[in-house]
Amino acid sequence: MPHVKRDLILSRADLRFLLHDWLRVEDLTARDRFTEHTRETIDAVLELAADLATEQFAPHNKRNDTEEPELVRTDEVARVRLHPEVGSALATAAAAGLLSATMDAEVGGLQLPHVVGTAVQAWFQAANVGTWGYAMLTVANANLLMAHGTPEQIATWVPPMLEGRYHGTMCLSEPQAGSSLADLTTRAEPRPDGTYRLHGSKMWISGGDHELGENIVHLVLARIPGGEPGTKGISLFLVPKYLVGPNGETGERNDVTLVGLNHKMGYRGTVNTLLNFGEGTFSPGGEAGAVGYLVGTAGRGLAAMFHMMNEARIGVGAGAAALAYTGFLKSADYARTRPQGRPPGSKDPATPMVPIIRHADVRRMLLAQKAYAEGALALVLYCGRLVDEERTAETPDVRERAHRLLETLTPIAKSWPSQWGLEANSLAIQVHGGYGYTREYDVEQHYRDNRLNPIHEGTHGIQAADLLGRKVVVDGGAGLTALVEAISATVDRARWTGGRAADFGAALHRATDRLVEVTAAVHGCPDAEQRLANASVYLEAAGHVVIAWIWLDQLLALGDRDDDFASGKRAAARYFFRFELPKVGPQLDLLASLDPTVLDTSPDWI
Amino acid sequence: MPHVKRDLILSRADLRFLLHDWLRVEDLTARDRFTEHTRETIDAVLELAADLATEQFAPHNKRNDTEEPELVRTDEVARVRLHPEVGSALATAAAAGLLSATMDAEVGGLQLPHVVGTAVQAWFQAANVGTWGYAMLTVANANLLMAHGTPEQIATWVPPMLEGRYHGTMCLSEPQAGSSLADLTTRAEPRPDGTYRLHGSKMWISGGDHELGENIVHLVLARIPGGEPGTKGISLFLVPKYLVGPNGETGERNDVTLVGLNHKMGYRGTVNTLLNFGEGTFSPGGEAGAVGYLVGTAGRGLAAMFHMMNEARIGVGAGAAALAYTGFLKSADYARTRPQGRPPGSKDPATPMVPIIRHADVRRMLLAQKAYAEGALALVLYCGRLVDEERTAETPDVRERAHRLLETLTPIAKSWPSQWGLEANSLAIQVHGGYGYTREYDVEQHYRDNRLNPIHEGTHGIQAADLLGRKVVVDGGAGLTALVEAISATVDRARWTGGRAADFGAALHRATDRLVEVTAAVHGCPDAEQRLANASVYLEAAGHVVIAWIWLDQLLALGDRDDDFASGKRAAARYFFRFELPKVGPQLDLLASLDPTVLDTSPDWI
Repeated sequence: MPHVKRDLILSRADLRFLLHDWLRVEDLTARDRFTEHTRETIDAVLELAADLATEQFAPHNKRNDTEEPELVRTDEVARVRLHPEVGSALATAAAAGLLSATMDAEVGGLQLPHVVGTAVQAWFQAANVGTWGYAMLTVANANLLMAHGTPEQIATWVPPMLEGRYHGTMCLSEPQAGSSLADLTTRAEPRPDGTYRLHGSKMWISGGDHELGENIVHLVLARIPGGEPGTKGISLFLVPKYLVGPNGETGERNDVTLVGLNHKMGYRGTVNTLLNFGEGTFSPGGEAGAVGYLVGTAGRGLAAMFHMMNEARIGVGAGAAALAYTGFLKSADYARTRPQGRPPGSKDPATPMVPIIRHADVRRMLLAQKAYAEGALALVLYCGRLVDEERTAETPDVRERAHRLLETLTPIAKSWPSQWGLEANSLAIQVHGGYGYTREYDVEQHYRDNRLNPIHEGTHGIQAADLLGRKVVVDGGAGLTALVEAISATVDRARWTGGRAADFGAALHRATDRLVEVTAAVHGCPDAEQRLANASVYLEAAGHVVIAWIWLDQLLALGDRDDDFASGKRAAARYFFRFELPKVGPQLDLLASLDPTVLDTSPDWI
Repeated sequence: MPHVKRDLILSRADLRFLLHDWLRVEDLTARDRFTEHTRETIDAVLELAADLATEQFAPHNKRNDTEEPELVRTDEVARVRLHPEVGSALATAAAAGLLSATMDAEVGGLQLPHVVGTAVQAWFQAANVGTWGYAMLTVANANLLMAHGTPEQIATWVPPMLEGRYHGTMCLSEPQAGSSLADLTTRAEPRPDGTYRLHGSKMWISGGDHELGENIVHLVLARIPGGEPGTKGISLFLVPKYLVGPNGETGERNDVTLVGLNHKMGYRGTVNTLLNFGEGTFSPGGEAGAVGYLVGTAGRGLAAMFHMMNEARIGVGAGAAALAYTGFLKSADYARTRPQGRPPGSKDPATPMVPIIRHADVRRMLLAQKAYAEGALALVLYCGRLVDEERTAETPDVRERAHRLLETLTPIAKSWPSQWGLEANSLAIQVHGGYGYTREYDVEQHYRDNRLNPIHEGTHGIQAADLLGRKVVVDGGAGLTALVEAISATVDRARWTGGRAADFGAALHRATDRLVEVTAAVHGCPDAEQRLANASVYLEAAGHVVIAWIWLDQLLALGDRDDDFASGKRAAARYFFRFELPKVGPQLDLLASLDPTVLDTSPDWI
């Protein structure tokens, strides 16, 4: 069984710094919800996550890639075969309570702060993003039910999910409608007993079938006939793989049929399926259609699903950050131990070769990875901290501000790690040279796995439209104002600190001002298509401004700490301000000009 | 057998434009070397290449990926098993004379211009870069022998290579010395009969073993004992897999042993091997060591190998451009046919969905791909044209200028398509959404295949050091001067043309001036390590300036042509000038400041 060193999965020193020194997680333990916890209990949970990630998840990460889930047919029924380590790793994590780390004690959760849950999750994602995928979906599913389900639905479905006996999925896309949810056609026919019967096909369903536990809880978007067209006619249904009896006993097979698997470039450990609902393979209760239970209000399914979706988007960002991070650590380790060549000016072949980390270009590639990976992880942890603020801060005003800021940051927390974490993994390959391109090393798999992240849970383009078309303009631009206020607070502290921090603060201040100016200029345009034509460029520029802020804020949290760790953080912050932040200048100029190149281009010309 | 439409491999319309309207290839037929050719014969060869690429190469591209070369042992000897389509495709191309398209008629070549050979090659690379790898290495090997071999060596080895009976490799890297050729240890012991016996290991040898033909011709860098240390003590040897008798008959097995295969992320069709020379598996003539024949002068092996290497580097750039191009065509085709969603401002779900090419963000991704793919292909064809100038222009002065310009452009022609062709393939995946991430579509393979290109034949970092540390400074900066003169000529023509071309010309002029200024500033620094610390940023900035020039020059060649093709070219040029060229501003500012962030970072901090 391959052995991956814990120190090459994530950095405990960095997590300690981010959670305690920077995000002051211990302060949360004064709040009612978290009084059972102390710094010690938090650290113990993180150590447990690190141990399980290292011992239970990392060892089969490569096997997830080389022996991907298979569709097998037994008794005319298609099933998914996973290799056994997937199930045992998930069971261990569930038994340790780590699936329900942030959930209420009353449903069996550890009731830890969300920011700690994000860090716990990052360990598993860095160790084995494919296996963790099942857990991530299950937890998001349970969270949605906690928010929108009836007490009876919660009691029936949530505890077995948190115990690892049931798993969850989210079923949005259909073959004819990927990102375009308004065009969903799956229908849910009401029955006199208050249940529904579903008919339709769902595409791209991660974890859509397997035999990891006793049951699978699908949360499915569908239309009740006679409802409004478009997104307003969409409702949310709970459709289990097996019906469940009054005492929780597994009953009849529901009519959810596995039709096929998608064979992916990476992220292979998480099976991805096409499911048919109500095609007639099974007839639960002797009737046609898959039995479904309405969750929340009819016609409000999309809003409920977005509860899960926002969480899933930050989870995708966390996964991208975690993959970037482990690739960074592995390539740094390689660079420290691989001898090759000599520095410029000392080319005498009689002298010994130096470890490649001594070459400036290799250090550049490592610093860039460090800036991307640590910046991305810090952002998603910051978002986790905002979830805690949103839910538990003392005043409604603080909670509201946290909510607005989180809403604005969510598309960035999803897309920035996905874009730059992938770039980090590409640099990790490059540091390894030819070895990095072979499957004998880990980094090419991380790169392939990470390439999914700009696609699922809303593509890069969807996030861009969400940020520029919605988040920074709704409520008179309150979302952007919340961001600017948060950045300004950091800039002010940097000014008082002086030195390099003040210089970086001044650069960040200029970039932020310009972002605000450009946002106004773009929204001054009356034509919706023109406003949004370059939304992806806006997303990327705003993302770099946000990460510069996150780096400056980390820098300030170092105080006068003076060790290798602090020097490394300062070097990465400096890298980001020198090599990365200046990239936004031309992007914002392009946006300010409302450049019409793309719109002017006829499809016939391409 | 999967069918790939020819129009989705490369664009014949674009090749006609690039070769005839832009590079005026027909003019070459007035020169002695090419008098046998006309526009018609050139076009006929290109059509032949297109047909063979479509019918013989494209159909097994996916099979190369899913059934990669295998190491099998028979009679205690390790062999490589390839599936049969590889051999038959290569044999067909060789029989059609396309391996020797540019070579002298006297060795059986078609004696076509090099620029036409580059276009021929691009068809095969776009269709199946893995299978074409064997041909590319064989042709480069034959070209090296034509330049440096003795008449007897040429007569023995070159014709069977061009006929597809023998194949070639280049053996540089060793396990302990990848990019660091000064540290090669393979030794070549002289024998009284003038031959040598080689002992050592060579790593990353593409096409290092297989049974595609009768023999494999390895060109191997090794040291003759007693020679100088470092690169000056390196000589070049021809080491065949099988010795060859006086009449060309295949003789005894030479002591070249296949030790293992590297299993790659992509580019799997081209087998990559570890070879041992002289380990004692075979004893040709009853003696120890692999029999080798010195090629060229002892101690001058590296210079001879670089003859092959420069050609191989442009070949890598051509391959990267070709992969970008086919990915672009396939994603444009998908975008034209896949309905999804509606434009902003017309969200009524009762209206039909539109093809996704109607969405601005999808057109942005297609335009970017077009700008990268067509820009990259144009650059490598331009380099091919320079090879023809270098060899056949009327005056020594013109030949010398072409040589200098080619030398300067070579690291860019290798690295720019590798970097941005990969980005194009990533965008091709993104246009396909989830489908693009599955192995059911072609684009994820192109992306994986293309990821090799920034690594092999000199990494990105090696190209950067070559450009900034050597090419732009040797001979008093004559290489940079040659580039600036070529750019200035285009800028002058753009000024006369007026309109948008003049605006783009002015922007290019400013960027070029700044590049020259920054080059001088960097080389004003006395410390070699500091000069080269940000060389990769220099390579990227210089690359963007060069591609902007290539786009402006294409734009001028369109004249007043007014059809969809010309409109598309203009849109892509405009995209490059608006979205891409401005990126060099911050890069050049960073370089001008001799930013020491990377150098200041201690390895202990990472």
